[in-house]
Amino acid sequence: MAYDPNNIFAKILRGEIPACRVHEDNETLVIMDAMPQAPGHVLVLPRTPAQDIFDLEPAMAAAVMRTGQQAAHAVRAAFSADGVTLMQFNGAAGGQTVFHFHLHVIPRHAGVALQGHARHMAEMAVLEAQAARIRAAWPA
Amino acid sequence: MAYDPNNIFAKILRGEIPACRVHEDNETLVIMDAMPQAPGHVLVLPRTPAQDIFDLEPAMAAAVMRTGQQAAHAVRAAFSADGVTLMQFNGAAGGQTVFHFHLHVIPRHAGVALQGHARHMAEMAVLEAQAARIRAAWPA
Repeated sequence: MAYDPNNIFAKILRGEIPACRVHEDNETLVIMDAMPQAPGHVLVLPRTPAQDIFDLEPAMAAAVMRTGQQAAHAVRAAFSADGVTLMQFNGAAGGQTVFHFHLHVIPRHAGVALQGHARHMAEMAVLEAQAARIRAAWPA
Repeated sequence: MAYDPNNIFAKILRGEIPACRVHEDNETLVIMDAMPQAPGHVLVLPRTPAQDIFDLEPAMAAAVMRTGQQAAHAVRAAFSADGVTLMQFNGAAGGQTVFHFHLHVIPRHAGVALQGHARHMAEMAVLEAQAARIRAAWPA
């Protein structure tokens, strides 16, 4: 399956549709997951068109990990989390629903199970408030 | 909580207890997960003592991702997988059970759910046979 340049993350990266943006650098963009599995759930996207981990240049994979590590610090601090879960799905069989590579970074609290993936849409105002907290906690 | 040098992955890295080793380089070690969530489930370990993503030097995080990407290619090829799921747990609340950083790389097949995490121990002979298939499929 070839990369579809009209997937929703490609449109977000091009600024064609809105998203709640948390952090940007030259290689990556961090957005709030619009269907979060927990409050503070963010996604790290490489800017280059890559469908999945098989399609991602190793230098971009390293950039995603660097940003993901920063995001883990930020969401833990912003939400006083007890833990952080990272997930990255490749292929529909691997759990992938949008076919632009993305790394999930999810703050966790003891005794609180993750909500189902891609089940319900969060309110934009709620996501914006969470994004502001995460930006304020982003490591220098 | 400080890093415990007697966690089982630290002992494996030091060669004090056996593990089914799949791949090694200067920064990382890949082993079969002894309690796999699917056949071919491997773990990427950094060689440096790091409890979790908060404790891992960024250069080592990049090394883990590089090896993880190779592992994703290898397990997909070795098991003719339809997809690959990556997971990385930080803190007991984040799903972590061994407190040395590790990245899960799990081949997936359409319609087959993951087995529970850390539920049952696989037979070493089965893991060794799987490791041989993964080694043979490791990208050059």
